[in-house]
Amino acid sequence: MPPPEQLDAPADRPLILLSNDDGIDAPGLHALVAALASLGTLAVVAPAQEQSAVGHAITVRNPMRAHPWPIEADGTAVWARAVTGTPADCVKIACQRLLPRPPDLVASGINHGPNTAVNVIYSGTVSAATEAAILGIPSMAISHCAWGRDSNMVAASMWARRIAEQVLQNGLPTGVLLNVNVPDGALEDVVGVEVTRQARARWEEEFEERFDPTERPYYWLGGRFVNLDEGHDTDLDAVGRGVVSITPLHYDLTAYEYLTELQAREW
Amino acid sequence: MPPPEQLDAPADRPLILLSNDDGIDAPGLHALVAALASLGTLAVVAPAQEQSAVGHAITVRNPMRAHPWPIEADGTAVWARAVTGTPADCVKIACQRLLPRPPDLVASGINHGPNTAVNVIYSGTVSAATEAAILGIPSMAISHCAWGRDSNMVAASMWARRIAEQVLQNGLPTGVLLNVNVPDGALEDVVGVEVTRQARARWEEEFEERFDPTERPYYWLGGRFVNLDEGHDTDLDAVGRGVVSITPLHYDLTAYEYLTELQAREW
Repeated sequence: MPPPEQLDAPADRPLILLSNDDGIDAPGLHALVAALASLGTLAVVAPAQEQSAVGHAITVRNPMRAHPWPIEADGTAVWARAVTGTPADCVKIACQRLLPRPPDLVASGINHGPNTAVNVIYSGTVSAATEAAILGIPSMAISHCAWGRDSNMVAASMWARRIAEQVLQNGLPTGVLLNVNVPDGALEDVVGVEVTRQARARWEEEFEERFDPTERPYYWLGGRFVNLDEGHDTDLDAVGRGVVSITPLHYDLTAYEYLTELQAREW
Repeated sequence: MPPPEQLDAPADRPLILLSNDDGIDAPGLHALVAALASLGTLAVVAPAQEQSAVGHAITVRNPMRAHPWPIEADGTAVWARAVTGTPADCVKIACQRLLPRPPDLVASGINHGPNTAVNVIYSGTVSAATEAAILGIPSMAISHCAWGRDSNMVAASMWARRIAEQVLQNGLPTGVLLNVNVPDGALEDVVGVEVTRQARARWEEEFEERFDPTERPYYWLGGRFVNLDEGHDTDLDAVGRGVVSITPLHYDLTAYEYLTELQAREW
């Protein structure tokens, strides 16, 4: 079935834009398409290639292509474009050039692997949803706490749909996006849902030094994730207990709690 | 003068790591080297190539090289490495592999162009400082509100030095970095310094569609920056008045102000 050229987006159905960072052929994106298909008109604008760990990168030095792409839901072709850019680029070009009107919801994922704690700032999945929030569009990033591309996404799909439905009904505060992490396991292993905060955590990186055939060194990034947070109200803690974590995020990075203290200093 | 192989970092002098996103040959980085040279032992670990707008990207799919690079300050060779990665990569590999001990300060810049308001999340300059904050190291990003590579950086250099000295003396709250923007102009045109918050602003993007010689479309990202914030306590407002802006930033993106409201919803 060839991908449709024009997107028919009737005003009486919600228009839902889907993106991700694992790339347009990732099983997680296709699971999300299937999960949200009956909630409205779907449009997929996702990176042509994997874009993990790109953070909030955008493409300013090169032009981008937007290739029609074959994706189906329930036997019907979905309007889809593979963009030669980052997740943030995809949301920008979709909302400001490719779509006939602003979407009612942007959903990014389902990511293969969790996006909890400090990993949020490295995450392309989250950056797509952040970009939507900047544009004033309700949005959510959804990640599955399992890395395998063949992992069981039934629970993640069900929760993606349930939360998307809630957001379509009730909206979100302006400038806020939801960062959703679904524990690994079968549907019945996921025992609830909680609204959480980001856990304090960090990576203890180890750069492994190797030598090429001409004896010159190169380095591979590796390391160990360390949770520094004993709270039970965090994203990490929730998914560890088999609970779906919903963390509201914003994009104002000002450390308001230190404004007064720093204003008192002599600069 | 060949770049030194070993970094001699005596314990009785502050060790200052410099990075940027414009690349290791950018005039702004060299201005920062000159500005901070007398404050301690300098080490430069900066991207081998320009990395503007990469946000908080890190390199996880490819190994990295760290090439010795010739940089001087006051006729003395500075230990410097050009890394084939992003600004965040540079700070990670410097602090966790290349340097003999953690630096006392990480300074990123001087960026050619402002990093105010929402632009912070796209900025590689800021991400280098953010990465340092995640590692628990006092850090600052410094940007000059002029894009030309031959712009007059006397005021930006002086303020970089003054603020770096302050941070070395008094430290910063854990997890907080400073995002400094210096107005364009001569030293006497910069009329003060203020601790500010990020302005609310957005880009109104326009994607210009062009057609290649085979008549296939491609798109260039362009657009117009729109300030939505009338406050006089913002980064944008300060630099507009000729005042140096210091914005404390953190990397916890949780929208705490909406936790209770969202916890009350039925998910």
